[in-house]
Formats: sequence, structure tokens, C-alpha cells
Amino acid sequence: MRMYDIIKNKRDNKELTKEEIEFFVKGYTDGSIPDYQASALTMAIFFNGMTEKETATLTLAMANSGDTVDLGLFGDKTVDKHSTGGVGDKTTLIVAPIVASLGCIIAKMSGRGLGHTGGTVDKLESIEGFNTSLTNDEFFTQVKNIGIAVVGQTGNLTPADKKLYALRDVTATVDSIPLIASSIMSKKLAAGSHTIVLDVKCGSGAFMKTPEDAKALAEEMVKIGKNNGRNMAAIITDMNTPLGKNIGNSLEVIEAIEILKGNGAEDLKYVACSLATEIVSLSKNISTQEASELVDNALSSGKALEKFKEWISHQGGNSNWIENPDNFPKAEFKEDIISEKDCYISSMNAEEIGISSVILGAGREKKEDAIDFSAGIVLNKKTGDKVAKGDIIATLYTNNKDSLKTAKEKFLSAIEFSNENPKEIPLIYEIVR
Amino acid sequence: MRMYDIIKNKRDNKELTKEEIEFFVKGYTDGSIPDYQASALTMAIFFNGMTEKETATLTLAMANSGDTVDLGLFGDKTVDKHSTGGVGDKTTLIVAPIVASLGCIIAKMSGRGLGHTGGTVDKLESIEGFNTSLTNDEFFTQVKNIGIAVVGQTGNLTPADKKLYALRDVTATVDSIPLIASSIMSKKLAAGSHTIVLDVKCGSGAFMKTPEDAKALAEEMVKIGKNNGRNMAAIITDMNTPLGKNIGNSLEVIEAIEILKGNGAEDLKYVACSLATEIVSLSKNISTQEASELVDNALSSGKALEKFKEWISHQGGNSNWIENPDNFPKAEFKEDIISEKDCYISSMNAEEIGISSVILGAGREKKEDAIDFSAGIVLNKKTGDKVAKGDIIATLYTNNKDSLKTAKEKFLSAIEFSNENPKEIPLIYEIVR
Repeated sequence: MRMYDIIKNKRDNKELTKEEIEFFVKGYTDGSIPDYQASALTMAIFFNGMTEKETATLTLAMANSGDTVDLGLFGDKTVDKHSTGGVGDKTTLIVAPIVASLGCIIAKMSGRGLGHTGGTVDKLESIEGFNTSLTNDEFFTQVKNIGIAVVGQTGNLTPADKKLYALRDVTATVDSIPLIASSIMSKKLAAGSHTIVLDVKCGSGAFMKTPEDAKALAEEMVKIGKNNGRNMAAIITDMNTPLGKNIGNSLEVIEAIEILKGNGAEDLKYVACSLATEIVSLSKNISTQEASELVDNALSSGKALEKFKEWISHQGGNSNWIENPDNFPKAEFKEDIISEKDCYISSMNAEEIGISSVILGAGREKKEDAIDFSAGIVLNKKTGDKVAKGDIIATLYTNNKDSLKTAKEKFLSAIEFSNENPKEIPLIYEIVR
Repeated sequence: MRMYDIIKNKRDNKELTKEEIEFFVKGYTDGSIPDYQASALTMAIFFNGMTEKETATLTLAMANSGDTVDLGLFGDKTVDKHSTGGVGDKTTLIVAPIVASLGCIIAKMSGRGLGHTGGTVDKLESIEGFNTSLTNDEFFTQVKNIGIAVVGQTGNLTPADKKLYALRDVTATVDSIPLIASSIMSKKLAAGSHTIVLDVKCGSGAFMKTPEDAKALAEEMVKIGKNNGRNMAAIITDMNTPLGKNIGNSLEVIEAIEILKGNGAEDLKYVACSLATEIVSLSKNISTQEASELVDNALSSGKALEKFKEWISHQGGNSNWIENPDNFPKAEFKEDIISEKDCYISSMNAEEIGISSVILGAGREKKEDAIDFSAGIVLNKKTGDKVAKGDIIATLYTNNKDSLKTAKEKFLSAIEFSNENPKEIPLIYEIVR
């Protein structure tokens, strides 16, 4: 078998065989197939797409290209949740304790933030003492004891995907639905959970700009998971506007705690509860109506908050901070964004607002960058809100005073005002099951 | 400027700017742009093509990526001829002395054979003493004195094309008309001649399989040349069947001599004279009718043969061999291919026949391979000919007895017989001017 023929077949729109795809993934992982052939292939895939069968084969080959996590001892109770990435998206911090309090098993690896989107591991590390680097033994013991553990990605998981994603990133072949779907799902399959619910973001702050593209991606991923024996659902949610009110690591943890205490922003609560409902419904094989009631009860009874505290303290975090979020260190500098007129906010570009929070220190531009846990943005007004002259639209927080000016300019450039109430955008477009 | 954006623009079917194309050619030549980005770009070009403007810019950028030959001292009399490659194609050996005898200036670099097609330099080297490695001074002095010199490719001509072609060859992006056209024409522009006539081969033994593709390629190349101020024409000729009767280096020189002496195969004579006519017509700015008469006269008067002898002896070749081709060494072994029945030859796959001659030793599979100058094939019958049982269809020649069996099998697999006279295929499809 020759890589040349594999490229040519895809170029000529022939369906690649299982053998061809596995030959490519193996050869690219072990370095026997050079980057320049892999990039020619991914560009051909960009143009000609992949069939359902090809995508499934590619996903599985990448999932099996390195270590895989065996969660078999937990039976079919393991659940996972994945977001394609957004701004202000702290749903994992809410969904995980809710579903764990209802008997689902969360044995999860999460990522760090890069670019305008944050990462769950960074957010958790903003809690004093929280340890995201458990040993294998510690990880499994904690999951057995309390049903939940979340750690940073460790081991040699999906090396084929890592290498291919880095290549696609510099050869303009990232935005191909089969390649995105197989990249995400290879990691999810390797991570081992039985039930997987995806939050496919859509809009200005997301990779998928339109509901149609988001739906196509969601359907592709749901198919792949089902074909591999997993319980699958995907919720297509809006990311034109940041989710909730707080953006930035400790600010987001604080907002998640508010929700777990029964308060907080309605949009965030709605998306988090919808994700939790899908997970519980699939995992327990009950109707979404029944699952939704369980989820509501987990919040209103305080069970989810208790599970959250238990989880945080088991991983070394200071649960007093959860009890009383005033314990989180405050940023030294802050600046209010004040409205100069009476009007409506007609749009908030989530990506630009995410970049503004990175400028404040809440995120990384490069992998090596350090994070300022208390930096970020609190939105007082959001898209569709009426604002009066002098109202505080948002407050920027940072420990680097010099960043305020640029961050403020960036933030303001992200907001549009109008005299009329803008058309409402749905928060959840569709659920793909 | 970033290579990433150049790839993305081409991927999204935006016309690349002059600056973008020049940035790519410069960066790829000097190594600052890696192979994996270049191959992603060429695959995107494969799918989205290039506009006339883009192709022209790419061609010129590649032509100027290394040394160029300045033939300015010869005014506008310099002429060049290029074939896209075929089997039994020895037209340069005929056309060059014809047009040189008519006052056109041939200061030409030619290639060596690779794969199933031969190269002019190898053919010339089958003549005892012939030197294809003249110094610059020797080359220019000879051209000044007798109007003709042909040497192997020297210097650092079109390094961008060399590097890009090698990459395309292993990433399935060779067969893109704008990329083929810019590759060929960058070399022709760098080689400096004012009048360029192309022989675009078409059929089983050629890169372009259909007359339509050959025409598209021809038109693209003619446009590029004209846009760069050259006199241009392209003849689309058949390469379903080998050209002429002899295949193999000294065998082809011998056949060229026959034509120059006024004898030889009609098809070869027709194609060679058509090419010469186009060259003379363009170079002297006279009608093709007038040019054709000059060409016929150059052959019938013996002027072209005299010029050939003068040329060969000026480059150190033994002109007694031209006088009497019996002087060429004969291959030690030969085998006749005998017809087993009364029938017609309905097709001869030129590529397969070319490979058969490579097996006999007439060509190279790899660059490093040595050539057996006297090896090859003489066709006694060709497509459309009636053959009787016992007739000799062809004779195979080699100095490696062991190769005969495989070469014979290959040769026979290339021939199809029928009971009816097959439809005649045109020898020249079209002339693009």
C-alpha cells in the first residue's frame, strides 16, 4: 500500500478502505508518512469530504493510536460531556456535580484554555489547593468513592489526532466537518465513557458560525458515537453572546457556585440543566421529562452543591471557598464599562469578548503563558438588554493595570448598540439524538 | 504575509495576488515555507485551479527563481521546441537541423529520458564522441558559428519548479493543468528562446489522455508564452501509438537520419515537418504555406542533413556515423515478434511499448540507471496495418539476453488485434496559435 495512492483515491473522490485509513493513521503516527503527504490528504478531504464509514474508521483508528482509558469497572454508568468551546462556558462545573449527585459516574479528563476559549482544568485550579494531576490510582479510587473526578489530560491519548490537528492548524484544513468530528470523537472514545453528551456551540464566538454547520457536525459526531456503542446526544447552543455573566477562571467558578446554590444567570442555568437532563436521560434510560425533574431536584435540594463540595475537597481544594466565594482573591484593578446613551445592546461578539478577557490575563495566547486566575469580565448587561446612559454594562478585572486600556477597547469593539430591541436568538437551536 | 492565508485563500477559491504567489515561490525555494504547506496549496490548486493571471504569475516567479539564459545577442531569431514526452519521439533530432539550416537559432537545453519516455540528450550521446556538456563559452561560440547547439540542462535553472515538481510527484498533485503549464513554461521562459513551439502529446503514451485535456494544456501554455512576449504555437499530436518505427537511443538517431535523407516513416516526417513549419513561420513571420515550402526544400535539398552533420561534428560527434549509420554498434541479441494470425493491429499502447524498451535497456527506471544505447524496438507494423500469419510485427534489440522474455511479454500485452481495420486516429488534432 502506498500513501500516494491513498491521496490520489481521496482526491478522485473514491471511498477510502478501512485498510487505507488505518495505514495512514499508523504511518502518520509512527512518522513513516511525512507531513507533506498528510497535508495533501487532509486538503483533499476538505474538498471531497468523507463518507460516514470513512469518518467512523478514521475516528476509531485515531482513538486507538495511543493509550485508551478503560472505565469498564464502572459498567455503563460512566458519562462525559464535551463542549466545542465557547466564552463564559462553565457548564462542566455545574453539570458534573448535578449528574454525579444523581448516580452517574464522571471520570473525566479536561483541557486547558487556549485562545479566546477557557478550559475546565484552569478554572478548577483557581480554587486553592485543587489538584488536577492525580495518579491513575488516585483517580480511580476517587471515582469509586464519590463518583466524580476531573483531571488534566495525561498519558499518550490519541497521538494521531494531536499530530494531525497541529498539521491542519497550519495548512488551513481545520474547518472540515468529518475531520473536526473525528478529532473530537477520537478523544471521547479513547476517554472511555459510555454516555457522551456534546454541547455544539454555534455563532460568532464558536468555530461553527451557523446552526446548519453546527447541526451537520453534531449529527456526524452522534453517528460516530452510536456506531461505537455509546449513548449519544448533542445540543446545539448559541455562542453569539458569552454564556452567563462571568468570564475568567475564578469568576466562572463563582458563577457556577451561584447556579448550584439555585441562583445565577438564567441562560447558563438553562443550558447546564439541558445538558444534565440529556446525560441523565440517556444514562438511566428514562424520559427527558423524568430526567429533567431529577436535575431540578438535584439543584433545589442542594444535593448537587454538596456533591460539588465533596468533589472539590477530595481533590485537595479548599471547600471553604465554595461555601463562601468571597474567599477567592480579588483582582487588584477593575474598570467599569459605562453606557454613554439610552439604547439596547444589539449584539456582543463572544470571540472578541473572549479575547478581551485574555488581554486582561484570564487566558493564554500561547501554551506557555501563565494565567491570572482572578482576571476577567463580569457582564452586567447582555444582548437584548435595555441600558440607560450611565449604566454599568460590564466590569473588567485584572492584576495587570496596563492591560485595561487595550482590553476595554477590545470589549467596546465587540458590542453593538441600537435603538430598537434586537431580534431574540434562540439559546438552544436543536437537540440531536 | 502568512503562507497559512495563501493556502486558505486558494482553498476558498479567491484569486491569489502577485505578492502572494511571489511570496510562496520565494519562500518555498529558500526553504522558509515547509513542504507540508506547499503540498496543501498544490492540492487546493488541484481542486480550484488557477486563473490565467495566477498561472502567468506563478510561471514567471518560477522562471526567475534561479539562473536564466540570456540569448539576447541573437536577437529574436532564437527558437525552441518542447515535447510533453512520448515514445519514439525523435523529432528534435530532425526539427533542430531543419530550422537551423533555414537561419533559425537553436541554443537549446534538453533533458534525459526517465520512465517510458526518452530524452534527446541520451539519444545524442549514442553518437560516438558527442559531447552534451559544453562550457558556457563553447555553447555560445558554437551557436554563433553554426546556429545550433544542444546541451544537457546545466546551472540552477528554475529551482522552484524542480522542488515543487518533486513534491507534486509524491502528493498526487501532478495532473493539474495550470501546474503542468507553469512547470513547463517556467523552464522554457528561463531557457530564453524567443519563439517556442510545443508538441503536446495526447493518448495512451502521453500524460494527457484526451485531445480536450491536451488542448486545454496547450492553450494555457500558449497564453503564458504570449503574455511574456514570446512567439508561441502548440501542436496537439497523437501518442496512442509510438511515433515512427524506431524506439531506443541509437535506433532513433538512425531513424532521424533516414528522415533527413528524405526517407523514413511518414507519421514521423509529418509531425517533424509540422513542428518545423510552425517554428519557421513564427520566427520569420511568414505564412505557414511559405514556411512549409522552406522546410520541404531544406529536406529535399540535403541542407538539413548537412546542418545535422555540421552540428554533430562541432559537438565532437563522429559524423561518419551520420554518413553511414551502419557504424552504430548493433545490439548483441534480438528477437522478432511474429504474428500468429491474419488480422489487423487495432491498437498499440505507446506507454507499455515504451516500458518494454526500458526493460530491454533503452531507458531508465531510476535517475541513476545506465543506458544501453543500442537497445530498443523496431516496429515493422503499426496500428491500422494488416498483418499476415508469420509476419514480423517488430524486432526487440538488447545486450541483456535475460531481458528479452519480459520485454516480449510486455510488448505483446501492449498490442491488440482485430479482424477489421480499426478507425483511424488523427496524427495531428489541432494547432493552437
